[in-house]
Amino acid sequence: MTQILVIGGGGMLGQKLAQRLSTENPFGPDARVTLFDLGFPSPSAAGEQIVGDIAAPTAAKALAARRPDLIFHLAAIVSGQAEADFALGWDVNLMASWALLNALKDEHDASEGQYRPRFVFASSIAVFGAPFPEKIDDEFLSAPLTSYGAQKAASELMVSDFSRKGYIDGLSLRLPTICVRPGKANAAASSFFSGIIREPLNGVEAVLPVADTVRHWHASPRAAAGFLTHAAQLDTARLKGRRALNMPGVSCTVAEQIEALRKAAGANTANLIKYRPDPTIDSIVQGWPRNFDTKRALTLGFKAETSFDDIIQAYLEDDFGR
Amino acid sequence: MTQILVIGGGGMLGQKLAQRLSTENPFGPDARVTLFDLGFPSPSAAGEQIVGDIAAPTAAKALAARRPDLIFHLAAIVSGQAEADFALGWDVNLMASWALLNALKDEHDASEGQYRPRFVFASSIAVFGAPFPEKIDDEFLSAPLTSYGAQKAASELMVSDFSRKGYIDGLSLRLPTICVRPGKANAAASSFFSGIIREPLNGVEAVLPVADTVRHWHASPRAAAGFLTHAAQLDTARLKGRRALNMPGVSCTVAEQIEALRKAAGANTANLIKYRPDPTIDSIVQGWPRNFDTKRALTLGFKAETSFDDIIQAYLEDDFGR
Repeated sequence: MTQILVIGGGGMLGQKLAQRLSTENPFGPDARVTLFDLGFPSPSAAGEQIVGDIAAPTAAKALAARRPDLIFHLAAIVSGQAEADFALGWDVNLMASWALLNALKDEHDASEGQYRPRFVFASSIAVFGAPFPEKIDDEFLSAPLTSYGAQKAASELMVSDFSRKGYIDGLSLRLPTICVRPGKANAAASSFFSGIIREPLNGVEAVLPVADTVRHWHASPRAAAGFLTHAAQLDTARLKGRRALNMPGVSCTVAEQIEALRKAAGANTANLIKYRPDPTIDSIVQGWPRNFDTKRALTLGFKAETSFDDIIQAYLEDDFGR
Repeated sequence: MTQILVIGGGGMLGQKLAQRLSTENPFGPDARVTLFDLGFPSPSAAGEQIVGDIAAPTAAKALAARRPDLIFHLAAIVSGQAEADFALGWDVNLMASWALLNALKDEHDASEGQYRPRFVFASSIAVFGAPFPEKIDDEFLSAPLTSYGAQKAASELMVSDFSRKGYIDGLSLRLPTICVRPGKANAAASSFFSGIIREPLNGVEAVLPVADTVRHWHASPRAAAGFLTHAAQLDTARLKGRRALNMPGVSCTVAEQIEALRKAAGANTANLIKYRPDPTIDSIVQGWPRNFDTKRALTLGFKAETSFDDIIQAYLEDDFGR
């Protein structure tokens, strides 16, 4: 019986993952799912819910002591907040990962090497910083220009080294911006990429804080949940020691996003987007990647949408009106 | 009056740097040098010596409280030892850097932003892991295959992010293997690269643990001390946010090293090298870089030797017979 732990299970992606785990049973009907987070939007049939703070001194030890077979580590302070609160960002986004990995190593050691969980870490394309080539390939350097990106990149190094030593069997997925996020806007600087689609579809005005020439890299929540479950089942020997992977996605400009919205829902809907420049968000987003060549991930079987039309369609099917 | 702190000032490179600081006075005749390390080979005219452990809880705070204008952070557990003692390597090579950077940030905050020291971090080409292109360029990814390399890469991310936020003005130098090291062999897996030159020159047999086809990237201790003082005086605005730099060096095979030794000191000397394969060292070294295109560093004015002959010459001039 596979024991699965989702750290950050109360967040948007954690909830999508939990739903997929409970409906599609990729780890068999007997798999038991535990969700850990600061809080949860609602009671869930998808698994046991534990409320706690992964950055608390005892949290990592207590979770590791359950010896889950499979751990998804999704908990993070988002980019905008990590930029505003430097100490909090490093504490949660790096030091909590560090404590967690060490707690898992302690269990590995206590089991005389028998315990070696699969560990899937949600990293981000924020590990990359400008200037970029036209397409970022699988060998391009991590030179982040945000604290969030630096924290994710440093965590990746730990996941890889703990894995190389055999304490865990881990990998890091550099997720595109997840779009269209259901629910409310959050403090991530990337929040508007979803807002300009979601709000108009729900009949509400949305603010666009950057020029519509901004190009970015997107995948739907559905695709992201698929990346995570695929990573959990991947033969990690195929990674040949390079355990951080750029995930596939759709590269498009904000203008192309808006055009896809117009096609899906009409001009009146698209006209609900109002351009109000925000220099802070603009300067963060200018440092973000725009396009990728994700050959490795595609070869390894990771799948994303191939157009922004498909991304809007996924939102309409999975989240609209719920 | 410039206050200079050299953390790891008792080590080989720290001593070379201290010597250069005291003889060449690159920061003026009034500069005051403080050396910090677990121990020192001898009393020194080069500066005040403080004995302590940078990984001790109070060490970073006490050093930061002195508000040095310029800090060289050279202290590290070497690669072989970091591989053998996982916890010690991470504690010293990453967590001590973390404590130090935070202690400097606390001083920055306490001074209301007035205090912002130059911080030169000794990183390593061990941040790179195989497979490599024929020459590693300035945009190649850090995918280390040793704990030492992972710890250095994670420290670089911190140095860059603390600098981006303005708490320090830092940069990381990815040093080639330093060769020819004076003194005794150490626990670094790279120790033999110096041993096969130094021991024969001193009439002693030396063990070569890898095939002579192994190609590697070298710079002399003299060049390395020059990298450090150059970095301390560099206009960091020229780095445009990318604060980790691959240092220049000489790419050559072990066979070419041996041929240079033969040219410098004769066949009898070169014949003192005995080939005894060591699979552990071989497997570590196979994961190391062999050649670089260090355009950025050269453009920024960093200078190294251009042949292994010159590297042997630097040893003969600076260290032989001392």
